[in-house]
Amino acid sequence: MGLSSLKLLFYFVSCFYLIQIDHFGFLEDGTFKQRYLMADKHWKQPGGPVLFYTGNEGDITWFCNNTGFMWEIAEELGAMLVFAEHRYYGESLPFGPDSYRGSKHLNYLTSEQALADFAVLIQDLKSTLPGAQHSPVIAVGGSYGGMLSAWFRMKYPNIVVGALASSAPIWQFPGMVPCGDFYKIVTQDFARSGYNCDANIRKSWKAIENVSSTAAGLQWMTEEFSLCTPLKNKNDAFGFKNWLQETWVNLAMVDYPYEANFLQPLPRWPIQVVCKYLAFDSTVSDYQLLRGVSQAAKVYYNYTGSSSCLNTSQTATGSLGFLGWYYQACTEMVMPMCTDGVHDMFEPEEWNFQAFSDECNIIFGVRPRADWAGTVYGGKDITSHSNIIFSNGGLDPWSAGGVTYNITDSLVSIMIPDGAHHLDLRYSNDHDPPSVRAARALEVKYFREWIKQAKKSSTS
Amino acid sequence: MGLSSLKLLFYFVSCFYLIQIDHFGFLEDGTFKQRYLMADKHWKQPGGPVLFYTGNEGDITWFCNNTGFMWEIAEELGAMLVFAEHRYYGESLPFGPDSYRGSKHLNYLTSEQALADFAVLIQDLKSTLPGAQHSPVIAVGGSYGGMLSAWFRMKYPNIVVGALASSAPIWQFPGMVPCGDFYKIVTQDFARSGYNCDANIRKSWKAIENVSSTAAGLQWMTEEFSLCTPLKNKNDAFGFKNWLQETWVNLAMVDYPYEANFLQPLPRWPIQVVCKYLAFDSTVSDYQLLRGVSQAAKVYYNYTGSSSCLNTSQTATGSLGFLGWYYQACTEMVMPMCTDGVHDMFEPEEWNFQAFSDECNIIFGVRPRADWAGTVYGGKDITSHSNIIFSNGGLDPWSAGGVTYNITDSLVSIMIPDGAHHLDLRYSNDHDPPSVRAARALEVKYFREWIKQAKKSSTS
Repeated sequence: MGLSSLKLLFYFVSCFYLIQIDHFGFLEDGTFKQRYLMADKHWKQPGGPVLFYTGNEGDITWFCNNTGFMWEIAEELGAMLVFAEHRYYGESLPFGPDSYRGSKHLNYLTSEQALADFAVLIQDLKSTLPGAQHSPVIAVGGSYGGMLSAWFRMKYPNIVVGALASSAPIWQFPGMVPCGDFYKIVTQDFARSGYNCDANIRKSWKAIENVSSTAAGLQWMTEEFSLCTPLKNKNDAFGFKNWLQETWVNLAMVDYPYEANFLQPLPRWPIQVVCKYLAFDSTVSDYQLLRGVSQAAKVYYNYTGSSSCLNTSQTATGSLGFLGWYYQACTEMVMPMCTDGVHDMFEPEEWNFQAFSDECNIIFGVRPRADWAGTVYGGKDITSHSNIIFSNGGLDPWSAGGVTYNITDSLVSIMIPDGAHHLDLRYSNDHDPPSVRAARALEVKYFREWIKQAKKSSTS
Repeated sequence: MGLSSLKLLFYFVSCFYLIQIDHFGFLEDGTFKQRYLMADKHWKQPGGPVLFYTGNEGDITWFCNNTGFMWEIAEELGAMLVFAEHRYYGESLPFGPDSYRGSKHLNYLTSEQALADFAVLIQDLKSTLPGAQHSPVIAVGGSYGGMLSAWFRMKYPNIVVGALASSAPIWQFPGMVPCGDFYKIVTQDFARSGYNCDANIRKSWKAIENVSSTAAGLQWMTEEFSLCTPLKNKNDAFGFKNWLQETWVNLAMVDYPYEANFLQPLPRWPIQVVCKYLAFDSTVSDYQLLRGVSQAAKVYYNYTGSSSCLNTSQTATGSLGFLGWYYQACTEMVMPMCTDGVHDMFEPEEWNFQAFSDECNIIFGVRPRADWAGTVYGGKDITSHSNIIFSNGGLDPWSAGGVTYNITDSLVSIMIPDGAHHLDLRYSNDHDPPSVRAARALEVKYFREWIKQAKKSSTS
């Protein structure tokens, strides 16, 4: 990764584009600087294609560095690369340092505004960049960025000829998929990665409760887990469990077949490494079990050995915009999740929309609209669209809300059974399973077809 | 018309639906009552189709009364009819009597918000109305309502299986069609309707200028045209010319083959009647010519003989929301128009976006975004969409910005050479030309196909 990232940083130009704060109203007529990265080293102008990354909830340079696939295929496609940063993240702040100050400033943080940004930016590039006027543009994105890519093609087929939506859970909305599937997949990942691994994690919640019931237990846990902030009461233990749960989820997302640094620096097949510390028999004591959990957590939080303590208020890279995404979840991106402790290794928790809505109202002063995403983006009724690839990894919990079967000839699913979260978008690696190599080859094949279609229709 | 309207009013139920003021932001969480009319007399439930009129810039009951076509085909299709009122018009006022008070209240008057209203309303009807859950919905609209129908299918193909966009100038936006075509068609309508008709109107502008150069001339014109408000100066004469120009345009829009009352009560083929008063030779004097123009104008403004004077501040029915449409033109609906006095019968006037933008800024405190409609609705790049009929009348000036050729097998154009503005949507009439009868039959044929497609895909 290190070398590759340097290569990317060297060839990309960082640009800013003045864009409307509000595309859907005319009262707020202000503009802000949206950042995008551009690389034209391999671009065959005039008319060479543009691969356009629809940025998601974080700093765009970080997504750029984790999307080596685009870089690797630029030469063979003669393509220009553009990575557009999503508004309200990274350096693309509509109101500068005030952007997150209250619901008034956050009001323009929606997926519709982001798609409109991308559309206007592409129209502008096409009209101002010599040689780009007739360039077919293909949207590429992973995770929420993949949802945006798919939606971008659905809503603006005049702007992009096709989209690769990698690990895009466009169906993780109310009423579309069972709320428990996500955590089931996390559990399966652990179950297949080591002896009794899922069973011991399932057991650990009660162990935490037992141990944390005394002050001495809380102190022991604080020391055992090398926590930066000591656990002091039952409430802290509750937060501690949430943090652990998120840790296991993150591990499932980044269970890559080689050493990588996406959410955290991690060894190859990190869940296998984690599970080595959790291979107890049923006779294990609470303290023994939690010692194993602690060692497992440290695989995730301290693989490099540089952390002096574990911070339970953070579970992933600071390049992700946690607060912005929380706001989006509290408005449009309502994604029901639930656990039952039977089909998954977590404590049972039902999906409670009302409680979630109340929480959103307290934190942001807004309430989510549960049905809106389904109405505006089509939910499961998307057959009339075209030229979208939905790629999903079998290890990735987000595949639960993804499109994992072909809908039509041109709305296709590519499954990568051994893949975690958008593995296909990453640099190729010697440890890549054959399934991801095949997926990438197929993706490029579709890209070529879409480019050919576009050239044909523009000359006819 | 009279009887038919009574029939409609009798069978329709007027309903209100609580809907979000802002679909694209979460700060404004208020709702308002949107009106819609419903008729289920012929509806075959469960699963019978819904014909959904996407209301335009006016009172929905008026559109309902002028869209007899839907009523006439309801029985043979076993269809339910819904006419949804466009926000900010008729009784669907987001902020009640304050809705037009300043750019702050007008901020939610956009086509995107209107489409979202329609989508949410349909989703709600489907989930609450017994028997409607699997009903395929077809969007129908004329003029701006037709643009909405087409865009509705493009943006929400999950909600409507197809759209009839009658006389919908979806290409009357910057850079898509020549700005002069609209007035060329108006001119052609007059040229073909009587001897020297267009030539004498072209001549009339100079005659008005000559006569209005003296106080006596202004007084003569005031009396001759029976104006409610006397012409007092050059400025008034300028306004008077604009009013006349709009009058000729309106006549071109409603040049129907039978007596009708759309914009005004009018005789059959009204332009022919008008042109009888304008059949002068080239030797005609200014005063003679203007007397003819006055008689012609009175055909439009006083066919019933009930007007005691002509009001130059109004050219059409009060059921249209003039101010709302002006705001929409000043924001998204930027439609360049121009005249050259050679290919048309009007005084030459170039399209001046800057001047228009300045005017909008003075009146509403907003500025239009010239390229937005093209970006968001695809402009001429709409090939990837499906199931839209674009019907246009050869007499209708709005056909200049319409889709008048087949784009694909399922984006089809139906031309009605003898038709004015959305003639096909009106009640059938003994005087209907064969072209409009054929058009209506073809439209129903497409409706049946779409309904069949929808049933097939919902059972598969």
